[in-house]
Amino acid sequence: MPLSKALRRVTAEPVRAPHPLPGFARSTVDGYAVRAADTYGASEGLPGYLTVTGAVRMGVAPDVTVTAGSAVSMPTGGAIPPGADAVVMIEYTTEAMPGTIEVVRPVAPGEGIVRADEDAAEGKEIIPNGSVLRPQDLAMLAAAGVTSVRAHARPVVTIFSTGDEVVPPDTQVLKPGQVRDATASALAALVADAGGEPVLGGIVSDDPGALEQALRTALPVSDVIVISAGSSVGTRDETANAVAALGPPGIWCHGLAIKPGKPTLLAECGTGPDGTPGIPVIGLPGNPRSALVVFRLIGMPLIRLVGGCTSSPPEPSTRAILSRNLASATGRLDVVQVTLSGGVATPLFGASALLSVLTEADGYLVIPEPATGLDVGTEVTVTLYA
Amino acid sequence: MPLSKALRRVTAEPVRAPHPLPGFARSTVDGYAVRAADTYGASEGLPGYLTVTGAVRMGVAPDVTVTAGSAVSMPTGGAIPPGADAVVMIEYTTEAMPGTIEVVRPVAPGEGIVRADEDAAEGKEIIPNGSVLRPQDLAMLAAAGVTSVRAHARPVVTIFSTGDEVVPPDTQVLKPGQVRDATASALAALVADAGGEPVLGGIVSDDPGALEQALRTALPVSDVIVISAGSSVGTRDETANAVAALGPPGIWCHGLAIKPGKPTLLAECGTGPDGTPGIPVIGLPGNPRSALVVFRLIGMPLIRLVGGCTSSPPEPSTRAILSRNLASATGRLDVVQVTLSGGVATPLFGASALLSVLTEADGYLVIPEPATGLDVGTEVTVTLYA
Repeated sequence: MPLSKALRRVTAEPVRAPHPLPGFARSTVDGYAVRAADTYGASEGLPGYLTVTGAVRMGVAPDVTVTAGSAVSMPTGGAIPPGADAVVMIEYTTEAMPGTIEVVRPVAPGEGIVRADEDAAEGKEIIPNGSVLRPQDLAMLAAAGVTSVRAHARPVVTIFSTGDEVVPPDTQVLKPGQVRDATASALAALVADAGGEPVLGGIVSDDPGALEQALRTALPVSDVIVISAGSSVGTRDETANAVAALGPPGIWCHGLAIKPGKPTLLAECGTGPDGTPGIPVIGLPGNPRSALVVFRLIGMPLIRLVGGCTSSPPEPSTRAILSRNLASATGRLDVVQVTLSGGVATPLFGASALLSVLTEADGYLVIPEPATGLDVGTEVTVTLYA
Repeated sequence: MPLSKALRRVTAEPVRAPHPLPGFARSTVDGYAVRAADTYGASEGLPGYLTVTGAVRMGVAPDVTVTAGSAVSMPTGGAIPPGADAVVMIEYTTEAMPGTIEVVRPVAPGEGIVRADEDAAEGKEIIPNGSVLRPQDLAMLAAAGVTSVRAHARPVVTIFSTGDEVVPPDTQVLKPGQVRDATASALAALVADAGGEPVLGGIVSDDPGALEQALRTALPVSDVIVISAGSSVGTRDETANAVAALGPPGIWCHGLAIKPGKPTLLAECGTGPDGTPGIPVIGLPGNPRSALVVFRLIGMPLIRLVGGCTSSPPEPSTRAILSRNLASATGRLDVVQVTLSGGVATPLFGASALLSVLTEADGYLVIPEPATGLDVGTEVTVTLYA
């Protein structure tokens, strides 16, 4: 993976500094390289005098040595010449006469200098295994001369839609009772956000066996399978049947104590690419909003895990004051969409079938399982949609 | 722009619903479509009796009408048949005898139903102009049958590196005094994060005129130009001279009250693509860390603005307790890198030249301009690196 393509990819091995970084002692200021001892006691009233014996140029090895009573002109970032152990900032010097400077402040050894191995000693782990590479990590890799990295492949996530009422989004005229497949496009986006490679498997008919056949075809090329289920009871059973037919380990759970999102199926079945046993399958509720809520909470972390990422990246969030009472049931996690204005979180209500509740929301809050609700005025954490 | 490529793109016009959504009244539950009036007064002790006259199938127009005393079996998401004004959940019914159900709870008109235009009325703005498209926005567009959107082009951001000490990242063996170009790779990543299209213009020599020539070549194909300056005084002057030579409006400021990042140049000059006057130019400090801090605070919002985005997306952040006193100077914004552990933010110190301070950081905090510092134990907001 070249560095130019490595942003947000997950490292598959630690990266160590191949040599000390920056590799040579550098000045952190514009000024003069000196022996620190030559500046001790220097003050405005009693400056020290040093003879300027040369100048360091950027990107070139110094051709002069600092000796007792001498100073060498330094640009920020220049290589410290032999003999010097500190750099006096130019602000604390004046040119007394051509070739001689006055120093009005003492410097301690090491002042104004970055050591040759201060950014990283040789062999130091500069990027851990399982890291999601951030912009500054790319900078560190480039500084170390590491221009390609071993990264985990993006998990291939095949997304199926089911339901006799579901038609492709480019269907211009709907027949009565039909709806366009809204969920698959959004799921593909969430998969990409989680570092996966979405593959749209299309709409599978509710005919018995059609979903099972579609899964069998997808398994050898999928690291995760997501089924955006039709919302009828029959369709949900069809998903469970198809998954069961693909063989053990089978279904983990069929139904979650979460609202919206109760009719969620989690399973591990069949054989994936290169004979990997037990490909994760997520059967999502038929309502687009329920499906997207569940997929954020359960699907995205799963994809990150399959992609080698050991921790989820931080999500944007804010604290806000709840505008009204919210009821919940003990033992159930409630996910409530909210708008934010002036530090106040206002819940949005409406059927799980309504996408507008999600598009109008700035974020969501979670009512934890043990709670029976939240009171108006409670300070809540709202996870923001980016 | 097809929907499949539109994630995080910025809309260049509002999108309106071409027809009501979902387009037909739908059931939100599994149950029976009824006339609400037929259920009034129904209870466990005194159930109402209704004759089941048909069943609605998913994706098909209902072929039956609900009349007084009748009910029609409904799947969640099915089209409400003519005559019905509510749906009773199946949980509140029992089959009294074949073809007849008992209803044990009354429903109000509209209960269990999503109206035909409840997600969006025809012509309603479903996506505003200047929106950064989120996964759920793609769902709404797909639901409306809008499979392509007009989006702003990604701003082309040309990134130059300067400095006689700077060599390409793939340089395996450095000569004394040389450093690899670490900043350009990270800037390209930040440009991409801000929705821009980074173009690496390479390393420009410090010869007088070389940078001016490079800028003249880049202007006709750039929406923004970023110069990661060499850190010597001479190089900084060279950037200012080159920008000045390209013509008005010229330099806005040369130096910012921010630490790190003081030697930042902001300008608008020359003529861009299609004759656009005044292309923004950002001259960044030579130290990689300073450059990346300034670019996050000033460069990324600028690129979003040029890309048509009217508001910056939310950033991940958290509240934490400061582990020690931090000094600052009034009138200067201080950006302090921190690690986070157990709700405590621990500042990282070290020269601006050190990239390890950035790679080890979990985020940063800002000491505002008026403050003279922050006391240990202060609750601070830490912006997290994602």
